Amino acid sequence: MIEANNPNLKSWITVPINSDFSIQNIPFGVAKTKNGVVVVTRIGDTVIDIHQLALKGFVSFDASVFRTSYLNDFMLLGKQATRDLRNQLSILFRDTNTAAKNNSEIQTALFNINEVEMQLPINIGDYTDFYSSEQHAYNVGCLFRDPKNALLPNWKYIPVGYHGRSSSILPSGVAIHRPKGQKKPNPDEAPVFGNCNLLDFELETAFFTYQGKPIGDSITTAEADDYIFGMALLNDWSARDIQAWEYVPLGPFLAKNFASHISCWIVTLDALEPFRTEGPVQEPKVFSYLEYTGNKHLDIKLEVTIQPEGSSEVVVSKSNYKYMYWNMNQQLAHHTINGCNIRVGDCMGSGTISGPNEGEFGSMLEITWKGTKPVKMLDGTERKFIADNDTVIMRGYAEKNGVRVGFGEVSAKILPAK
Amino acid sequence: MIEANNPNLKSWITVPINSDFSIQNIPFGVAKTKNGVVVVTRIGDTVIDIHQLALKGFVSFDASVFRTSYLNDFMLLGKQATRDLRNQLSILFRDTNTAAKNNSEIQTALFNINEVEMQLPINIGDYTDFYSSEQHAYNVGCLFRDPKNALLPNWKYIPVGYHGRSSSILPSGVAIHRPKGQKKPNPDEAPVFGNCNLLDFELETAFFTYQGKPIGDSITTAEADDYIFGMALLNDWSARDIQAWEYVPLGPFLAKNFASHISCWIVTLDALEPFRTEGPVQEPKVFSYLEYTGNKHLDIKLEVTIQPEGSSEVVVSKSNYKYMYWNMNQQLAHHTINGCNIRVGDCMGSGTISGPNEGEFGSMLEITWKGTKPVKMLDGTERKFIADNDTVIMRGYAEKNGVRVGFGEVSAKILPAK
Repeated sequence: MIEANNPNLKSWITVPINSDFSIQNIPFGVAKTKNGVVVVTRIGDTVIDIHQLALKGFVSFDASVFRTSYLNDFMLLGKQATRDLRNQLSILFRDTNTAAKNNSEIQTALFNINEVEMQLPINIGDYTDFYSSEQHAYNVGCLFRDPKNALLPNWKYIPVGYHGRSSSILPSGVAIHRPKGQKKPNPDEAPVFGNCNLLDFELETAFFTYQGKPIGDSITTAEADDYIFGMALLNDWSARDIQAWEYVPLGPFLAKNFASHISCWIVTLDALEPFRTEGPVQEPKVFSYLEYTGNKHLDIKLEVTIQPEGSSEVVVSKSNYKYMYWNMNQQLAHHTINGCNIRVGDCMGSGTISGPNEGEFGSMLEITWKGTKPVKMLDGTERKFIADNDTVIMRGYAEKNGVRVGFGEVSAKILPAK
Repeated sequence: MIEANNPNLKSWITVPINSDFSIQNIPFGVAKTKNGVVVVTRIGDTVIDIHQLALKGFVSFDASVFRTSYLNDFMLLGKQATRDLRNQLSILFRDTNTAAKNNSEIQTALFNINEVEMQLPINIGDYTDFYSSEQHAYNVGCLFRDPKNALLPNWKYIPVGYHGRSSSILPSGVAIHRPKGQKKPNPDEAPVFGNCNLLDFELETAFFTYQGKPIGDSITTAEADDYIFGMALLNDWSARDIQAWEYVPLGPFLAKNFASHISCWIVTLDALEPFRTEGPVQEPKVFSYLEYTGNKHLDIKLEVTIQPEGSSEVVVSKSNYKYMYWNMNQQLAHHTINGCNIRVGDCMGSGTISGPNEGEFGSMLEITWKGTKPVKMLDGTERKFIADNDTVIMRGYAEKNGVRVGFGEVSAKILPAK
């Protein structure tokens, strides 16, 4: 067991009940504080300036890697450095360390979450989005093709994925405008141009990579863990009407690239180790480069709510990351089997995570079954898709043996089209 | 007219006959010289260290933007800075400037092309590839669907594009290995895993962007020129057998992302202005955000050769960039109409550029009509697609009023699969 994951540890920093940020979490992020933009971690509602800690020698790292706008410089130090820093922070903030608790220099490195502005944590190189939830692929197949042949022939052989847009990945909290584009609402008429009418979210997680191997080499499923820094929540916004008209034959483009939002805290793969769980039986048998041993899935509870302006949140989905058919190790092995290189800070989305039951679907397309089953809001209005001034909020956490490790939330408001 | 484009200018540096690098070109690149990695330009076969020139005050720029591994810092200064530098270099190296010619400090900034190692010139953020040549889209439609409905319904409304992989974009000269992957050669049998057997090139150009507008804003066709730094040649390698099996429904992924090559010299849009030419009539009428005025196409002659190991080059295609249906201004307007932001160093590929006649097609898929019309090499062998140890070389230049402005070449050898 990684010592920082020990479920018996407590922190001298207050951790509210149901906080995602136990001392077993120690996620990484970037915050704007009164001292500038720095790399931080979080325990409870306390944000910890790691740059200050390094400057004063409380963690044994060159402070300059924490005085930057992104985690990339720190990530370039590799997996062992992440592990070392997490352990050093765990020792510093556990309740038995009264010397640290009473050290006034450490106190100056602590901020309440409300005193800082969280930033996009990673300078993202390439963004890949997979399509790895069987229920989601099945639902989409039923809605647009034929329930009897809902899954396409390649789906159980290939962790299907495509390249997305990294320039428009935003941190939680940044509002966006409803996109405009071409769509073809009537199959018998010419396309029209206008506001997206079928704006949807996609409930996803994302993982972020360390520097990979040189171009031409591959990463095996057994090696994959060593190339994964951590995970975040991802809302992969989708303009369904734009998508339907544009996506043949080269895939989604403007329907997706207007914005994607990620949560601001990157939870390390190390912190998630205690929550490993078994994946599904894969039948037909996968090609050998996709075989893996051990538990590579993760039990992470996920939830989506919609909050209309002036009203309260309504839960529209409760899903779980364990429902994935393809796991991250398989995704990374597939991505590199042709020699494609990955770089520090690449972002890989899971694809929409839909569970097997109603109430567990990860997009409005599925939840309202293409608009045929609208969802009621508390103010009496209905939603088939996302309305102007709605805020969509996703949350996620893992919990076991009394320890909770989570992401906080990814939240974004939809402003009217410009 | 931009003064540096004046066709009457000559340089005191020797420019060989048929050189792409006249004094009217003044492209930008990055080279490893004995002084380090610096931003350079080229006249004839002479590479000019702009960092040295700036250090000594021969061009009025902060030298630090030229002492980097990429053009991005310089590009961040914007279009006017590009224009100013090109003009200053033009004045320095024109034959009337005998003072410059006789200045020994300037002489130390000059290298023969064989004395330097050209680098990937731009730190590419996002890579988008369009599909904007009508003949190419038509050919693909004929080969895989039906000649009577070869173009898909959206093709004449949308400059169809998709996101590609930027991590694996390589500079001319770097050899790559044949990729491996899943393919399904027999429709009635299960897929197999192995070496790509249908390895193809795609003859393209690419343009590179300046920093764009904030997310949520759009760039009009009239504004687009101000956001385009320059162009290069692009070989968008394609593994046709991998592509056929993987690409439904989200587009090409491993079939493309194992590598793409670009030429090392970025020719500025300013230098290409004299070669503007009319585009095709677009029918049906395009949406207003895709309308444009003036000549936005470019007359750039393109050529592809294959050189088997130990044999000579054989020309397999002569095409022209003027054959594009959608121009760069339309591509950029479309890309941002939904609020998607572009950043400095984004790369946008044209899509395969096929002319209307046989001999002008931009991929082996089209040239050999899916392998039914093999091409003869000088050593007696035949090619349906690209063989191991073949080198594929693309060249391109514009020529008018006795002035030639070109890209040099993008060349890459295919090594056997690892």
